[in-house]
Amino acid sequence: MPVGTLASVKGVPQDLLEELGVEILLSNTYHLFLRPGVETVRQLGGLHRFMSWDRAILTDSGGFQVFSLNELRKVSEEGVAFRSHLDGSARFLSPEKATEVQIGLGADIIMAFDECTEYPADAARARTSMELTLRWAKRCKSYFEEHKGEVPWGSGRQPSAVSHQDRHVPRPARDDQGDQTQGLFGIVQGGMDSALRRESAARTIEIGFPGYAIGGLSVGEPRELTREVVLSTLEHLPADRPRYLMGVGTPEEIAFYAQSGVDMMDCVLPTRAARHGLLFTSEGKVSIKQARYAQDESALDPACDCRVCRRYSRAYLRHLYAANELLAQVLNTVHNLHYYLATMRTVRSWIRGG
Amino acid sequence: MPVGTLASVKGVPQDLLEELGVEILLSNTYHLFLRPGVETVRQLGGLHRFMSWDRAILTDSGGFQVFSLNELRKVSEEGVAFRSHLDGSARFLSPEKATEVQIGLGADIIMAFDECTEYPADAARARTSMELTLRWAKRCKSYFEEHKGEVPWGSGRQPSAVSHQDRHVPRPARDDQGDQTQGLFGIVQGGMDSALRRESAARTIEIGFPGYAIGGLSVGEPRELTREVVLSTLEHLPADRPRYLMGVGTPEEIAFYAQSGVDMMDCVLPTRAARHGLLFTSEGKVSIKQARYAQDESALDPACDCRVCRRYSRAYLRHLYAANELLAQVLNTVHNLHYYLATMRTVRSWIRGG
Repeated sequence: MPVGTLASVKGVPQDLLEELGVEILLSNTYHLFLRPGVETVRQLGGLHRFMSWDRAILTDSGGFQVFSLNELRKVSEEGVAFRSHLDGSARFLSPEKATEVQIGLGADIIMAFDECTEYPADAARARTSMELTLRWAKRCKSYFEEHKGEVPWGSGRQPSAVSHQDRHVPRPARDDQGDQTQGLFGIVQGGMDSALRRESAARTIEIGFPGYAIGGLSVGEPRELTREVVLSTLEHLPADRPRYLMGVGTPEEIAFYAQSGVDMMDCVLPTRAARHGLLFTSEGKVSIKQARYAQDESALDPACDCRVCRRYSRAYLRHLYAANELLAQVLNTVHNLHYYLATMRTVRSWIRGG
Repeated sequence: MPVGTLASVKGVPQDLLEELGVEILLSNTYHLFLRPGVETVRQLGGLHRFMSWDRAILTDSGGFQVFSLNELRKVSEEGVAFRSHLDGSARFLSPEKATEVQIGLGADIIMAFDECTEYPADAARARTSMELTLRWAKRCKSYFEEHKGEVPWGSGRQPSAVSHQDRHVPRPARDDQGDQTQGLFGIVQGGMDSALRRESAARTIEIGFPGYAIGGLSVGEPRELTREVVLSTLEHLPADRPRYLMGVGTPEEIAFYAQSGVDMMDCVLPTRAARHGLLFTSEGKVSIKQARYAQDESALDPACDCRVCRRYSRAYLRHLYAANELLAQVLNTVHNLHYYLATMRTVRSWIRGG
């Protein structure tokens, strides 16, 4: 899932995202909560209509961003008080509020409001944090069950135009009355402790969600530890529900985790790296700012058939980046997204082929 | 002609420019001279190949930018010594050097190196400046005649894939041997004095160029004065050669001047205004940053059929701009360029229809 923080994948128009084969994108509740605000999006019919995007959208709960604010936040049983990074205004998110906001935004998949346990955390802290996330998960589900009919698209939103043949793009849910509703996913926490992760998984499954995410990773721990925790957690998640690994990762990592049973991943890496001139290619990473590319007439990635590699030279891309031209960010992002999506298509064909 | 200062129309990929119907774009010699440098562009086969653009390109002479540097420049009979706005390094452009650089960049149309007379200028100053421009025009032509075979594409560049049915896109020239060469245009100066303008036109025509530009306008003078000077100068330029009005203007102005006999215009207004959230529509200018558009579901311009107006609401465009999203600059630029090009298409159909 490419990241479209503020209801836009930075620099890439929606028709180009469609052409790239993006089937689902992630948008950030925290950012949309501040700008343009949930009421605006709700009144405009929800995120899909607001950003003119018919395919699937997932919103995170805002928890991860709020916890990243460090000095600006205060956690209590009730929720998290924080100050906006934009204007310092006092704000509050709780399980109920985060769910309310996500219902208002109207994404296809929404996430439970969890506490992302920091790294490192000792055993006691990891347990306390996990228990809080479990209590919050129940509150999210209760709120959701009571309010799920309040989506801005009512029962009017049709299943998206995208084909849902691929298991990794979950179908929109239908509730008891047959109305289409959002899917609320639970999140497994538990720090880096396998036993806690297992317990978190079991108790989250007990609450019951249509999909499960593995959260609290990519928070500074070594890559090997991430892998260990992911693999040991995956075992305890039902294979017939989408399993979503949050915030991962490099092309190699997404290929590895997809083959290990992860169904969904999101990461800012392809888009953020692109804006910093770091490009992923079949021959490895290319830092396009380097002077060695100044007169390099070859395509960025000769094995790539994206619009950028078909048309422009490394020399031109290097010039655009060095001259701080807007087009550098557009073209670099298009290429990196294509590279990630092509990687996933390849992995899926491997999986289908056994 | 949209402006692609650094071999890129800011934020818009070349395939989208083609789709918009851009047939010729302007690139700035001064900026390319500094970055990436003419030798790089020459070695990469010239601007067309460098930026992957088959259609026509015009480069200005660098004169206008150099004269805008004010404190950083020193004019002599020989040329202009100036300091780079990027790193303060000492540089020099003369008629010969500016022509050499433009031959190296290899645009289809290149411009004589002129002195853009400041406004206001008294009669003596306007004449002195005009005389200098005339002496420089001769030197540009001499240099060009001697070196025109040194284009980076040699005799290899084929006429562009664009149809040249429209008079406003001049065909590439052919020299005596039948090889394709660039077209070097002369520039009429003379301040705001009609008599001087007439003299400048006559003496520039005497030197002899395949096309003529009206320079030294849009330098701070009142709009009515611009109009007066343009109309009085146009009379003295041959109607069978392209007449190019430099640096003009608003949609109303380009429509007016096109109907008055101007064949070519360039202006940063559509692209620069777009990046500042100022959008041209059939209902007048829209400053998309305004809060009044925050929940406006209508298309930016209901009468416009560009990709932006067909897909996105004012509310979304306002959000993108307010949140400082890259996509705002991309979409705004696409719309404004479409609006300008559609305006020109309309005017051309009026002209064809008499």
